[in-house]
Order: sequence, then C-alpha cells, then structure tokens
Amino acid sequence: MLNNKMTELLNIKYPIIQAPMAGGITTATFVAEASNCGVLGMIGAGYLSPNQLREQIREVKELTSNSFGVNLFVPSEFETSDAEINGAIKCLQPIREQLDLQAIESFEIPKFTDELETFHEQMKVVIDEKVPVCSFTFGLPSKEVIDQLRQQNIILMGTATTVKEAVENEENGMDFVVVQGSEAGGHRGTFMNTSQESLVGLMSLIPQVVDCVTIPVVAAGGIMDGRGLMASICLGARGVQMGTAFLTCIESGATDIHKEEILNSSEDQVVLTRSFSGKWARGVQNKFILQMQQHEASLPNFPVQNTLTKDIRTASSLQNNKDFLSLWSGQSPRLAKKQTVKSLIKKMIDEANTIRNQNKVGE
Amino acid sequence: MLNNKMTELLNIKYPIIQAPMAGGITTATFVAEASNCGVLGMIGAGYLSPNQLREQIREVKELTSNSFGVNLFVPSEFETSDAEINGAIKCLQPIREQLDLQAIESFEIPKFTDELETFHEQMKVVIDEKVPVCSFTFGLPSKEVIDQLRQQNIILMGTATTVKEAVENEENGMDFVVVQGSEAGGHRGTFMNTSQESLVGLMSLIPQVVDCVTIPVVAAGGIMDGRGLMASICLGARGVQMGTAFLTCIESGATDIHKEEILNSSEDQVVLTRSFSGKWARGVQNKFILQMQQHEASLPNFPVQNTLTKDIRTASSLQNNKDFLSLWSGQSPRLAKKQTVKSLIKKMIDEANTIRNQNKVGE
Repeated sequence: MLNNKMTELLNIKYPIIQAPMAGGITTATFVAEASNCGVLGMIGAGYLSPNQLREQIREVKELTSNSFGVNLFVPSEFETSDAEINGAIKCLQPIREQLDLQAIESFEIPKFTDELETFHEQMKVVIDEKVPVCSFTFGLPSKEVIDQLRQQNIILMGTATTVKEAVENEENGMDFVVVQGSEAGGHRGTFMNTSQESLVGLMSLIPQVVDCVTIPVVAAGGIMDGRGLMASICLGARGVQMGTAFLTCIESGATDIHKEEILNSSEDQVVLTRSFSGKWARGVQNKFILQMQQHEASLPNFPVQNTLTKDIRTASSLQNNKDFLSLWSGQSPRLAKKQTVKSLIKKMIDEANTIRNQNKVGE
Repeated sequence: MLNNKMTELLNIKYPIIQAPMAGGITTATFVAEASNCGVLGMIGAGYLSPNQLREQIREVKELTSNSFGVNLFVPSEFETSDAEINGAIKCLQPIREQLDLQAIESFEIPKFTDELETFHEQMKVVIDEKVPVCSFTFGLPSKEVIDQLRQQNIILMGTATTVKEAVENEENGMDFVVVQGSEAGGHRGTFMNTSQESLVGLMSLIPQVVDCVTIPVVAAGGIMDGRGLMASICLGARGVQMGTAFLTCIESGATDIHKEEILNSSEDQVVLTRSFSGKWARGVQNKFILQMQQHEASLPNFPVQNTLTKDIRTASSLQNNKDFLSLWSGQSPRLAKKQTVKSLIKKMIDEANTIRNQNKVGE
C-alpha cells in the first residue's frame, strides 16, 4: 500500500529511511534492526575511519540480509587563519577548565587533502563491500567517483536544502534527493546557498523541489510519525528520512543523556548553532550553545572547529554532563518517544494507513 | 468532502482562509471575492483607522452575503530611546535621499495608549457591524474584550508560532488557533517566545500543537495549493490560511511590482528582516533589506521603526521602485501564480480531491 518507486529502488518494505547520524549513534545493531524492520538502515560514516567503516558494514551484514546504506561527508576546501583558531581556543578555554581538560598547547589544522584521501578510502570500502545504497552530505562527489559507484550499481542519494541544490543533485547523477527542511536536527547539508537562504520549511521545500526535478524526493526534517509521512507524500515526496524519531529509540547508540534531553524538550528549545563544528546544526539548547553564542560568527569553519571541540564533547559525555554535548535534535522533540525501532515503524505505518483509509484526509 | 468543524463554525464551503494582509492588499473587492468563492475573506485591519475599517466592512457586505472576517493587531507596550531613534533616522537618511525625501526634522514617538485606544475603537466597529469572525495577531486582547466579542457570537481566532502560544490562545477563549510556521510571509505573530525560538516549520509545528490543544488548528505558512492543504490536514490541521497564494491573484490590492517580485522569486530569495517595522517579517530580499542588515539589531521596536519607514515605503511604491518596498512573501514563491481567486480555489480543491481520491496518498 505504501509501495512506490522509492521502496522498489531501495528494496525496502516501507518508504522510510533511518537517517545516517554520525558520531556513534548508528551502531551496527541499530542499523541492522532498522533494516530488519523494513526500512533503510543507514550507517552515518562521516567520522569513521575506513577500517572502522569496513568493520561496521560487515557487522551489519551479519545482522541483516536486508538492504542498508552508508552516508559520507563530502569534504570541501576551507579557509582559516591562526588568529581565528587562537580566538576559538581562547573562548573554549573556560569550558575546558570546567571539564578539567588541559589547555590546548598546539593545534594541527586538519588538511583538506587528508580529508579527501579519507573520503576516497571510505568510498573504496563502500564499493569493495558492495553496500547497496550510498548517500552524501555537504556536497556531491566528483564525476569520477559517481561513475565508479554507478558502475557497481550502488544506488546514490544526495542531500539538498534548496531547489538549486536539488537540481544539482539530479544533474550530477543522484538516483534520489533527500530534501532537508529547516526543521531538521543535526548538521545542515547546505553546499551551494548561504545558511540563511537555505532554512526552508518542508511545507515550502518539498513541492517546490518536486516541481523542478524528476528523481524521487525524500523528505527530511521534523518527521516523527504517520502524520508526517502522509503529509510528505501529499506534498509530492516518495517517502521520508527520520533522524530524531530513530535517535530516541532503545536500540540507537545515542547516549542516554542525549535521548533524555530530547524527550524532555519542546520545539522552542531546539536551536541552530555553529559553535560545535563550524557548520550550522540544530540541537537542544544547552550551556555550551549559550556560552559560545557571542563568539559564533568568528569561529573557524568545519572541520577546524569540530576538531577543536572534539575532546570537550568526549569529556562532557564521559562525565555524563549534558552542558557541553552536541544534543542534535529536529524541531519535533515533543513527538519523540522511548520505544523500540519495531514499535516506531509499526505505529507509524498503522497511523499512515488510518489517515489514508479512514478518509481523515479531508473529512 | 472537505467539510469539517472548521467550515461549519466559520460557515464557509472550503477549509481555507484568505490571510488578512495589512497595508492595502485586502481591499473590499478582494475580500468579498474570496468569500464569494467559498473561503473566508479577511480584512487585514492592522493599519486601518476605525472609520476606514467601518467603511471597508460595509463595502464587503455590499459585495457578498457570505461570511468574512477582520484581523486586528493587538498592541503591546514597547520601549525605545532617543539614541535608538536617532540611530535609525541616521541610517535611513541615505535611503531617503535616494527617494528624494526630506530629512526627518522631528519625530513623535507613537504612544502605546493611543495604539490601545485605536484598537478598542476598531473592536467597537467589529461589534457594531456584527462581523462574523475576528482574528488577532501579535498577542491576545484582554479578557474584557474577549468576553464582549463572545457575547456577540463573534468567532475568535488567534495566532501562534509555538505550542506555548497556541495553548495560551485556547486558555484565553479563542475558538480557533492559526499556527504560523517559519515558512510564512509577512510579520511573525510571535508574542511569548523569542524570534529564534519561534521559527518552527509547519511539519513540526502542526502535529505538536494539535497534540496540545482541543480547539481546531488552522495551518499558515508556505501553503499554496492542494498539496499543502492535504498535507496540513494529514498533520492534524482542520484547514489552512494562505497569504502569498492570494496576494498574487489578479483581484488582490497588492501593487503590481509586489506581485511581479514574488512571481520572479525563488525560495532562497525570501528572507527575514526587522528593518521595515521593528518586528521580524519575511519578504523578498531587496536593496532596503541588504542595506539595513548591518543595523538590524539596533533598530527600534514596532511600531516605532514602522512609523520611521512609512514614507520611505510610500515613496518607493509611488516611484514604482521595488528597492525600498516591503515585498512580503512566504517561502513558496515558485508556486505563486497570476490568476483569479476563483481559479486559485478551484484548482486547489480539485488537486486536494485528486490526492485524496486517487490514492496518490500512499500509492
């Protein structure tokens, strides 16, 4: 009943993708459980080394025979300066002290060439391991990389936050485009527009993209249940990708403190910040976001700021301290539940079918 | 088929409200045409004097026997200072020169007590003229005012941009709540939250509000066609309120230049600004918004800034110059069409029924 071009091409039962959330959330068990429940499980591999990625792919394969995917961050060149980095180090210092972390003595700037090399190695793992689906965030890979993946019959998905970016995805050979509304949690996938231009709500974004591309559109951002799935389909999407709804599931690898913070939040406590990584991202407001707000505009770009805050986030997590963690969440935390992946999917499909069949639509 | 509690209570054929757009857009002819086409026509009376309002209501009554409504701005106290005002005058001066406007020699600060008096006189007109529906923006009126209106069996609608504001609407006796998503054009109706907290996309806002109130919810923001109507209904709204979709209609009182700018814009060109009025509002980016951006944070609050820019907007309009006009628009300008109100409604209802009946929903 909810079958369409998306479920067919991705070889899944329901038109739902478990969003690839980087940073330890999408463990092999969790991804495999999503796939076993009839949706597309996705490994958020942005921060994984090629070896870690290979290992995780193999674990997923052992736990499910269903389709699954891997998401990669496309590196892009970035500019920074010593002054910018020293400024960031200075304003992060009081936070380091609160966490009993030593002051940063020296800092090695991440190199774009290294990032690119890792990306190509990750890609090689995806090809070697014959991963069925590969998706991209923060841009699109080169034509060569895309051709290589297509030759292996790997289904390709890109991310877009505006119509322009969605068209770019289609023109560069993506099979699907995930449109990320302003509601979405975690990092904005924007790669061609400015941050302000790209904060488009799904009610506007989906139909405008659908009218301009021919590839199937997947909606992402604030979608938590059957209502969001059916609304996305009415707007012209083929299905949805959900992050926060999966993140608070029992099987997800998110920390308990992260899950609890989402479960206790309301939509007006979920804000945009670039203080964690240098890229804009949405999460539950905490002490770190508030304290860094005044410095936000002058912080270095991704991945520099991300590297600078890494041990702060790790220490905060180890100390079970929510204050300095990135508590990524979309704008619908009131709809988040502590439940199994199976229960999430079952309730969602039941609700979607109820809306569709009972003529609630329109009545 | 699209009948529900909303159409019943508002005594309209379709669950659609023509948004009350202040500033000359909602002429009597336009409002009456909307009502004659089976939706709720609304007079945007925020900037109308009590006499102008009375006249316009009477004109609408002559042109339609169907239901219609009036929207009022609820005044709230504001703080300002001579320094702030002089700063604003200074940065507006180059723009005044470009428009051949004389420099501001003296400026009288609008008084809250005057604003309140006008509001109460507008209210009296609504009661005297037995207007069927009255809606509010920027807050809620006092209990006394609400009681008075309810005694006259006037249907009351409030505006909310967060769950907290929606609950406040219900607790204060509103019969409906219009939830304004971050996609919406024109002024943000926010009155309890900060501007950042209140930028919630409809995909998140509708279901979270629906779960927390018992009064019918009307969705507003970026909705332009049958897809948006059906999506809103799937999310739990009873119907929709549309601004931009009506604004570009042939019968609307918006200037041709305003209509053309929307028709030629894309979603990434529609931005938030507080430079026109002191309140955050969404419109097509132009020279005024760009030039004022650096001063935005220090400009006086509404209605002070609004008064300061009034003759700039008037002169720009008279000179057919788009550069210094407030070109309000929601985030879906690509879906705007130059068409009659009748054609807008007909196509919308046909599309909604197609989505519903042809099982496109879920296919």
